[in-house]
Amino acid sequence: MPPRIHEQSVRVRYEETDRMGVVYYSNYFVYFEVGRTELMRSLGVAYRSLEDEGIHLPVSEASCRYLGSLHYDDLALVETWISGLGKARITFDYRISRLEGDRRAKVAEGSTTLACLSAEGRPRRFPETVRSLLREAMGQLGG
Amino acid sequence: MPPRIHEQSVRVRYEETDRMGVVYYSNYFVYFEVGRTELMRSLGVAYRSLEDEGIHLPVSEASCRYLGSLHYDDLALVETWISGLGKARITFDYRISRLEGDRRAKVAEGSTTLACLSAEGRPRRFPETVRSLLREAMGQLGG
Amino acid sequence: MPPRIHEQSVRVRYEETDRMGVVYYSNYFVYFEVGRTELMRSLGVAYRSLEDEGIHLPVSEASCRYLGSLHYDDLALVETWISGLGKARITFDYRISRLEGDRRAKVAEGSTTLACLSAEGRPRRFPETVRSLLREAMGQLGG
Amino acid sequence: MPPRIHEQSVRVRYEETDRMGVVYYSNYFVYFEVGRTELMRSLGVAYRSLEDEGIHLPVSEASCRYLGSLHYDDLALVETWISGLGKARITFDYRISRLEGDRRAKVAEGSTTLACLSAEGRPRRFPETVRSLLREAMGQLGG
Repeated sequence: MPPRIHEQSVRVRYEETDRMGVVYYSNYFVYFEVGRTELMRSLGVAYRSLEDEGIHLPVSEASCRYLGSLHYDDLALVETWISGLGKARITFDYRISRLEGDRRAKVAEGSTTLACLSAEGRPRRFPETVRSLLREAMGQLGG
Repeated sequence: MPPRIHEQSVRVRYEETDRMGVVYYSNYFVYFEVGRTELMRSLGVAYRSLEDEGIHLPVSEASCRYLGSLHYDDLALVETWISGLGKARITFDYRISRLEGDRRAKVAEGSTTLACLSAEGRPRRFPETVRSLLREAMGQLGG
Repeated sequence: MPPRIHEQSVRVRYEETDRMGVVYYSNYFVYFEVGRTELMRSLGVAYRSLEDEGIHLPVSEASCRYLGSLHYDDLALVETWISGLGKARITFDYRISRLEGDRRAKVAEGSTTLACLSAEGRPRRFPETVRSLLREAMGQLGG
Repeated sequence: MPPRIHEQSVRVRYEETDRMGVVYYSNYFVYFEVGRTELMRSLGVAYRSLEDEGIHLPVSEASCRYLGSLHYDDLALVETWISGLGKARITFDYRISRLEGDRRAKVAEGSTTLACLSAEGRPRRFPETVRSLLREAMGQLGG
């Protein structure tokens, strides 16, 4: 089964552009954050709730390839899916496109790996209910 | 006695510009933060140490007038001084200039008022030693 | 007639918080930008189109009073309206609230004044059609 | 010959932290920008001057591995060197450490590849004088 792809649109803010007239490269990683936050919310696993339970997911690796550009006021589509799930780590992949009517022009693709840590900063397993939902979204059988 | 004016230079980052080619307006408030952090450090009152002692200084008011602009790679000078000190609040004033050799072209001036709060978020007095240093920097007699 | 108040919701991003756990003070000015962009879009005066016509609206004054705080993942409501309109300047006022079900808890209010400049950076009048729409939104008779 | 490693210190700003209390992951890419800007300045190839000559260097790939964390007010060391140079692209590698007196604790390492584009956005060669300086810094014979 293919992974579940979550779609989230983001409007480019003036603040996110730079003097080249396009979105500054580090801001794509902020869009990635919006993408994974909303994917998890759609699964019923609000990231905020995880933190309230003492689970932190700091990023351990991040990468992006830039294939085009986004301008001020563009409507961007952030597609996010889970591409890897370990005992104490999870990898999200992303594709960002510029929406132009019905067309989508791909402008970037990337990946982030997050570690699952306890409040004390030690690696820990995902809670079983969470892990089950994440596996299902990844396209594997849940549980 | 006039207040002590602290001078701190800041190099404009590409990330801080916008598609108009100049520093985006909200980033001046980040420069203000750099200014007051370094003023306090110069007084021997590191803001970080205050937080470690359970004292938080959230901003309650902020304002800026923009008189010019800053471009990528400009060297800006942030001048900061204490313009007001209450029991549980402090006001910093700022002047930002673009450095061009020996000349300074003023590009912005502003002000921020910070509340002094306990770790629980309740207004509290500054510790006496801190208050004394702040008063002295403000140009009043210490103590 | 009262001014037209535009409402825009914004989801707080992790990136926008600071180590105090709340939205960093300069980011409220980014929310203000989102508010005025969307107010103008709702009037049929896309800010992006203005720039394409060689009209720039740099901020000349900005201020904010902070009355509460926003946390990660909060849904904030940005209310924006035009409070002043001159020959070559416009003032937007803002109110930001935290949405909690049906309730709105006000967390900030502010104001920004923007200059109307030509592509060469000189003050210029708003085009008459634009001015008419802005006046109407401000609650005055258009034209 | 090994590449020339440029060292640049950066003080962590409050704005750059997030509610986990550490520097938000996308901001490392801003530190990378500071690193490559200052490396190029030290070579006599100010990035700003390149743009003035119609040469743009947008990022085409970026990656970072996070090995530790940076807190508010930490002094970070950004080490930058050129690890690859093609006809119309250049790769910078980075290592970021937290400075603790004489010790350096590595917190991140990363890489960015930039395309060399004309003002019209087409790939172009670096000017020969620039290319020569970059090759030399990379540890190859200049020219």
